[in-house]
Amino acid sequence: MPEPTRYPADVLVDVTARVLEGLGAPTDLARLVGGSLVGSNLVGHDSHGFIRVLEYAGWVRGGHLVPDARANLAWSDGGTAMVDGHWGWGQDAATLATAQIIENAREHGVASVVLTRGNHVGRLGEWVETMASAGLMGIAFCNTGGAVVAPYGGTKRVLGTNPYAWSMPGPDGDHLVLDFSTAVVAAGKVVLAAMSGDAVPDGALLDHEGRPTTHASDLAAGGALRAFGGHKGSGLSVLIEMAAGMLSGTLPAAITDSGYGNGTVFLALDVARFVDLDAVAAVSRQFAGLLHAAAASPDEAVLLPGEVETRTRLERAAAGIPVPSGVRSGVRDLAAELGVDLPEFHEEPVTTNGALDDQTG
Amino acid sequence: MPEPTRYPADVLVDVTARVLEGLGAPTDLARLVGGSLVGSNLVGHDSHGFIRVLEYAGWVRGGHLVPDARANLAWSDGGTAMVDGHWGWGQDAATLATAQIIENAREHGVASVVLTRGNHVGRLGEWVETMASAGLMGIAFCNTGGAVVAPYGGTKRVLGTNPYAWSMPGPDGDHLVLDFSTAVVAAGKVVLAAMSGDAVPDGALLDHEGRPTTHASDLAAGGALRAFGGHKGSGLSVLIEMAAGMLSGTLPAAITDSGYGNGTVFLALDVARFVDLDAVAAVSRQFAGLLHAAAASPDEAVLLPGEVETRTRLERAAAGIPVPSGVRSGVRDLAAELGVDLPEFHEEPVTTNGALDDQTG
Repeated sequence: MPEPTRYPADVLVDVTARVLEGLGAPTDLARLVGGSLVGSNLVGHDSHGFIRVLEYAGWVRGGHLVPDARANLAWSDGGTAMVDGHWGWGQDAATLATAQIIENAREHGVASVVLTRGNHVGRLGEWVETMASAGLMGIAFCNTGGAVVAPYGGTKRVLGTNPYAWSMPGPDGDHLVLDFSTAVVAAGKVVLAAMSGDAVPDGALLDHEGRPTTHASDLAAGGALRAFGGHKGSGLSVLIEMAAGMLSGTLPAAITDSGYGNGTVFLALDVARFVDLDAVAAVSRQFAGLLHAAAASPDEAVLLPGEVETRTRLERAAAGIPVPSGVRSGVRDLAAELGVDLPEFHEEPVTTNGALDDQTG
Repeated sequence: MPEPTRYPADVLVDVTARVLEGLGAPTDLARLVGGSLVGSNLVGHDSHGFIRVLEYAGWVRGGHLVPDARANLAWSDGGTAMVDGHWGWGQDAATLATAQIIENAREHGVASVVLTRGNHVGRLGEWVETMASAGLMGIAFCNTGGAVVAPYGGTKRVLGTNPYAWSMPGPDGDHLVLDFSTAVVAAGKVVLAAMSGDAVPDGALLDHEGRPTTHASDLAAGGALRAFGGHKGSGLSVLIEMAAGMLSGTLPAAITDSGYGNGTVFLALDVARFVDLDAVAAVSRQFAGLLHAAAASPDEAVLLPGEVETRTRLERAAAGIPVPSGVRSGVRDLAAELGVDLPEFHEEPVTTNGALDDQTG
């Protein structure tokens, strides 16, 4: 297979935004959502990248995503607030929630914002990283509107893939950013593996009779993903399902069976009220050194949460984002259906971006 | 091996409190700590039960635990507060922190209390369960002052066993209470297994050369526990180590190498500001039914976080708490050293407790 063609991030943001406009998004929201999606590509999480426009198109057509809706602040009271996404773009609602929580945490020391009637918020890590950049410890979790994970000890779909994200400010913008699905493997990756005929790892999937399987296609055939980390990861997923589902009003996925919507809870703590941020940075550096030195051998690596994303962001900002031809044609096909012309989304890498040319030689 | 003798909880609280008084604790603190420790026995977590007085005795003798120190509120500002444990009993400090966070969360909607200079706070689940009883979503995590866990991809001790606890109010006092160590197996259980010659589960332990082992004695010989759940559980442990270590001032264990102290962070959210608690109770019941029904077969069980503890509490409140003879003699020996007489802590079960007699027939 040839290396996928690489595109500069700004080209992909343009492409994505134009497709989103074709779906009915106002220009500013289209650019916001496009920037957020391509931001996931930049840090290496292509499953949360601009490929999602294909899924979003289905939601818009099904009436689940209102493309010109705008999130607003429903109420703010003490350290708590509620953002109403009005079933528009989740990234719009999460952007507002993040801005609000930064303001509230600075005023009250601690804050929580809950997002109701929100669609897919994208990569949770984006929002907690923004909080860390503002000097906050940030936590975010959401239920994912679609029961596809079996709890520990069970075989039936009761839980979503319910991700959890957590950040702490670090030195020079190298924040700790943890962001994981409570399923062993994200559902999107299993769908991708089924399309390409790849196996899924041992322990990640059960077939429709509850037997362990590595055949990715068993998921669509009525199987279930497994929660990570035995009863501990499964317990995290249960707490996310109930806490995010109830606080947001989205309800647990197994009860609504809606298949969409991210009930999202954000928590933030103003670190500087407790400890000087320079001290945090200094100890973070020292602790990172100890973690790196814990590797079994010089050939192996222990990475901090967020470290691989930071490295990938640097690499892809310089060399461009690889786009497999199947992904490109999927987006081109959608664009064609919408009557959106994508002249720059060609087979060959775009060479009009000076920065990219300089750095890829 | 004969069934361990069972004792009523109140007898064990008396016994424990008298030993703690022998260590220098004022009567009220001795009873508070004793009640908290035996509370862990009641829910089945004997590793966090009154056996801990043996460890505490070592800390008192080493000057790490000041037995007559009392925690106080160092400061309270908006939704945030700091409790200073003055290196006294962690349970005293955690009790104050929990009372303060309930007050602050009711006033501000969300609150955070950080505990500095605190010794072992006991079972984190106790404090988040108290928050749930007050209608709050509660989160607590702490670093554990003693690097004994290897991060994912590494073989050296860099992390503590860093537990995480999370609660949501449930119906009729049946709250969701998640409480887990981020190590695959708690250090105390490995120490116990080494004493009895038992093996530890696959994947829980590395020997001093970083090789997987099931020999419990390899831990004391320079081995390391492994974090649960691969890079996800390891990442949680890193965030707990840095967030709790820095916010509390306790610092990451690998940096101080102190071997004691729980830097603890509590977070609480007033659920009723977002959703009616009766609705939470109703959906909780429905969701619990779906989880239970997800079991692979009628012979297997899917349990909610906290469910096994609730069942054990009912059983042990009625039938008494089993105390292996080795545990009893360990506590008796310590008591003898301290000049504390424990006439009721006999070989035979105490039969003066009417409730116990009635229910065990």
